[in-house]
Amino acid sequence: MAFYSHILLAVDFTRVTDSVARQAVEMCQAFKARLSLVHVVEFTQMDLSNDLILPQELEFEQELIKQSRLRLEELAVKLGLKKSECFVSQGSTRREILRLAKELNTDLIVVGSHGREGIQRLLGSTANAVLHGAPCDVLAVRVKGESVE
Amino acid sequence: MAFYSHILLAVDFTRVTDSVARQAVEMCQAFKARLSLVHVVEFTQMDLSNDLILPQELEFEQELIKQSRLRLEELAVKLGLKKSECFVSQGSTRREILRLAKELNTDLIVVGSHGREGIQRLLGSTANAVLHGAPCDVLAVRVKGESVE
Repeated sequence: MAFYSHILLAVDFTRVTDSVARQAVEMCQAFKARLSLVHVVEFTQMDLSNDLILPQELEFEQELIKQSRLRLEELAVKLGLKKSECFVSQGSTRREILRLAKELNTDLIVVGSHGREGIQRLLGSTANAVLHGAPCDVLAVRVKGESVE
Repeated sequence: MAFYSHILLAVDFTRVTDSVARQAVEMCQAFKARLSLVHVVEFTQMDLSNDLILPQELEFEQELIKQSRLRLEELAVKLGLKKSECFVSQGSTRREILRLAKELNTDLIVVGSHGREGIQRLLGSTANAVLHGAPCDVLAVRVKGESVE
């Protein structure tokens, strides 16, 4: 069976990350698929009004990326994956996840879902955002009794 | 392995129904899960302004439900399922799918996704609607090169 051959897990380092990761691993085992991890650093504190980027802002951002890479690699080791399956991107979460999915030619994106209602629904979520324009299938994992964000 | 034990496939009878159904069957085989099918008839032509429901409108609606049941049962037979796994509901697609998912205690809803962008994204879709408030995981199956609706 080779229905899904390469799965991309979007990691947001919230409380439910471990649960969502476990589901992704189950999917990989069921389909004997390769698993890659992506985390997107959305931080952009730069003052765009005067074209100035302060050195300490750049440093902070670089540190954030470095820390994210370390945490992602820790998760990869815990899941029995190689560190080379870790991808840390910077920018819009949706855009970066979809870009990487296309680049890696993954056939499934696994993302946590919080099942929000009402006004929160209108505000959108990562799962919702990724669903639109995804080049492949999307599995939204609903972790019961907890909030993703 | 018993990661997913009961999967609900939302059927909309568009051109991509067969492809989405095949993906759902693959998931069921991978997890040895039970598969149920649901189709929601959204037709409601009733004139709510004067509390009158014309007999021919009721007849048309009943006929639509009957035809939908037959089509769903045909699909079930094609997929090797029992007719008792077919559910035809009437009302809001999102509400009915979620209601049935809760009632059957399914752990995954499989729905077609069209990957719309821009203004169409704002207008929503079944996949998007189902994602919000879903009591379980949702797999949005992206059928390439075709439009679901």
